[in-house]
Amino acid sequence: MLDNLNNYDIVLASKSPRRQELLKGIGVDFTILTKDVDESYPERLPLIDVAPFLSLKKAKAFEEAELPENYMVITADTVVIVDNEILGKPADREDAVRMLNMLSGKVHKVITGVTVHTKEKTKTFSVTSKVEFDQLDMEEIDHYVDGFRPYDKAGAYGVQEWIGYIGVCNVEGSYYNVMGLPTQKLYKVLKSF
Amino acid sequence: MLDNLNNYDIVLASKSPRRQELLKGIGVDFTILTKDVDESYPERLPLIDVAPFLSLKKAKAFEEAELPENYMVITADTVVIVDNEILGKPADREDAVRMLNMLSGKVHKVITGVTVHTKEKTKTFSVTSKVEFDQLDMEEIDHYVDGFRPYDKAGAYGVQEWIGYIGVCNVEGSYYNVMGLPTQKLYKVLKSF
Repeated sequence: MLDNLNNYDIVLASKSPRRQELLKGIGVDFTILTKDVDESYPERLPLIDVAPFLSLKKAKAFEEAELPENYMVITADTVVIVDNEILGKPADREDAVRMLNMLSGKVHKVITGVTVHTKEKTKTFSVTSKVEFDQLDMEEIDHYVDGFRPYDKAGAYGVQEWIGYIGVCNVEGSYYNVMGLPTQKLYKVLKSF
Repeated sequence: MLDNLNNYDIVLASKSPRRQELLKGIGVDFTILTKDVDESYPERLPLIDVAPFLSLKKAKAFEEAELPENYMVITADTVVIVDNEILGKPADREDAVRMLNMLSGKVHKVITGVTVHTKEKTKTFSVTSKVEFDQLDMEEIDHYVDGFRPYDKAGAYGVQEWIGYIGVCNVEGSYYNVMGLPTQKLYKVLKSF
């Protein structure tokens, strides 16, 4: 499947083990190459445009010389939006607890932006999922933060971890998008690239 | 967490590696003990009652003497319902292909029934999720059936496998329920057992 990609050397520009696993899961062979990118964005950018904007910024950060000759670079960025605020990665323990308290008992949005970038063309898209957490008590939040240390995760949680198992009462949309990569949409984009 | 269960010897009566992983994931210690149970059900039973009926049947199949003294038995059964038909495990390759063709481009229901059974009480509940497959083509169905051999799976697919990554465009409800165990609801039931 995806035989149309055979001529490309595919590069995933992400340190996230979840993204690596999901891209492998749709049957793509790739190497990993990452670059530190300043993740700031224009203040006036609508919140729903932040994740695709950052995925494009990550893709454009590479110089051609750094990439294989027939490159296809895939980048992604995931944000959590609740109460009109973007939750990024928590700064410390206190911040992680604050974020989980904000998410408790509410529906929030998870948006992943993805960019597929080659010499010839660049395509950016995003997928939104809605996630509902049941009420979490302080004992559960402490247990999760201390046991799982979710400091590398937007919104301070991984849906594929204990807190996702016991706390998420409803998902609407793509579950893999919540994990960090909208596999179904990406597969469709790659199939017709 | 779930310290209220400390006095029980918990038995999971399921051969499914997904269920074993999910029950472990919510923090329950258990042993596995399975029994072959005739999975027939009364013809007139409404389709939505089949999964909880079968989970209860699986729990009641044990005799007390076979179980640890302070037993808590957890059983589950998952069915896929599409076009008013229950899809069980496919009989053979042809049947798996038939099922995936039925699911292609449509929304179906996945119902998991769960029973928690102790000397003192027995609680049965079920959770329903809706899953939508995008249109699957024959090449994709053949690739999946031959590569993944989904003969042990209701509806001939595992949402956590390639076909779930590339084919499922929408989930509504609990994703883990689709995998075979409604972790969030089970956690709530166990917490207040």
